[in-house]
Amino acid sequence: MRDRFHEALEELKQRLLAMGGLAEYAVERSIEAYSKLDLALCRSVFTAEESINRTQREIDELALDLLAMQQPMAVDLRLILAAIKINADLERIGDQAVNIVERVRDLCPLKACELPIDIPHMASLAVEMIHQALDAFIRADAELAQQVLSRDNDVDELHDEAFDHMLKEMIERPDAARQALDSLLIARNIERIADHATNIAEDVIFWVRGADVRHRFGLPQR
Amino acid sequence: MRDRFHEALEELKQRLLAMGGLAEYAVERSIEAYSKLDLALCRSVFTAEESINRTQREIDELALDLLAMQQPMAVDLRLILAAIKINADLERIGDQAVNIVERVRDLCPLKACELPIDIPHMASLAVEMIHQALDAFIRADAELAQQVLSRDNDVDELHDEAFDHMLKEMIERPDAARQALDSLLIARNIERIADHATNIAEDVIFWVRGADVRHRFGLPQR
Repeated sequence: MRDRFHEALEELKQRLLAMGGLAEYAVERSIEAYSKLDLALCRSVFTAEESINRTQREIDELALDLLAMQQPMAVDLRLILAAIKINADLERIGDQAVNIVERVRDLCPLKACELPIDIPHMASLAVEMIHQALDAFIRADAELAQQVLSRDNDVDELHDEAFDHMLKEMIERPDAARQALDSLLIARNIERIADHATNIAEDVIFWVRGADVRHRFGLPQR
Repeated sequence: MRDRFHEALEELKQRLLAMGGLAEYAVERSIEAYSKLDLALCRSVFTAEESINRTQREIDELALDLLAMQQPMAVDLRLILAAIKINADLERIGDQAVNIVERVRDLCPLKACELPIDIPHMASLAVEMIHQALDAFIRADAELAQQVLSRDNDVDELHDEAFDHMLKEMIERPDAARQALDSLLIARNIERIADHATNIAEDVIFWVRGADVRHRFGLPQR
């Protein structure tokens, strides 16, 4: 029974990794849609989000089954709890990719214009953060997770720069104001994606560091 | 043992309700800070967020203890899982309140200006959604939760209107562009708060409807 339980825990990890792949894919397609102003790519992100939502439900059910199978040890409980939270963050990364392509659909009919904002660079930083956070999860590596936390500041700084630059554009070039606003809102979605990667890294730390904590089977003192 | 377990489940619900009160408080203070351009109110939101974060950790530990106490029934498992997710959403509502006061701090040194956007109205809708979603949780009322989902569209519509109005202001009144952008970003934070209320309502539905589902102690079929 115990072995079957640990096999199933391993499967939970693998499925989360696959879910992470779907989320990264959705973000990357949404940014490609932005760069190319491509409506077909926008649609592919909506489709990807549907499979992300379906996968999230399947992973939640697997986690519930694991909790119900037997009385898990404290360290396994923390792992399952972390998995449930990571799963929710990955689903919301998918939502952000959808938010991005909604802005891209707003941009598509407008006149293309050069703007001083590097959306693909920001996005690649955020995707690397997701990747590193999931890597930390699979390796149970709290130090690697800690690195993700420190990278969140880089994305925040890029976002703050984008805010100032896009505001300046909106004021100086009224004909590019809508494009600048859409681009700024996309930068904001990317910042949120980086926040979700940070949440995942925090969950990894919670799980790995909590592994040292003694099992507690009673209620907490009040 | 079973009775102690159900007492602890009841406590979990009560603590989540208190956590909801903290989150609503933080949102309401952040909007008051916006209306009055009051830096002291901004600071009170940062303090509130710290207690929200602390409370989240305490609730998570209680949920973990409940999971570890004994092999919970499937319906109780779903309740605990829903509680963990609702807890995370309430914490993120606190984060959004912090995002709002960060924009308010940006606004404070600027010239005050009238803008065609009703932030307090949008916020009161979002706060009502949080309240109703938590009410649905306490009463285990899936229908009430369903009502929250339908209200999310109202907030989305107000946000879309705000987008158009603020963009127009930015183009026509360059001297009010920064204020318009800050206000739009606050409207966006409120939209996110409504999204979190929607997530909570979905978790309530997941739990209440799942209560009819037969217990499953094995692994799902592949």
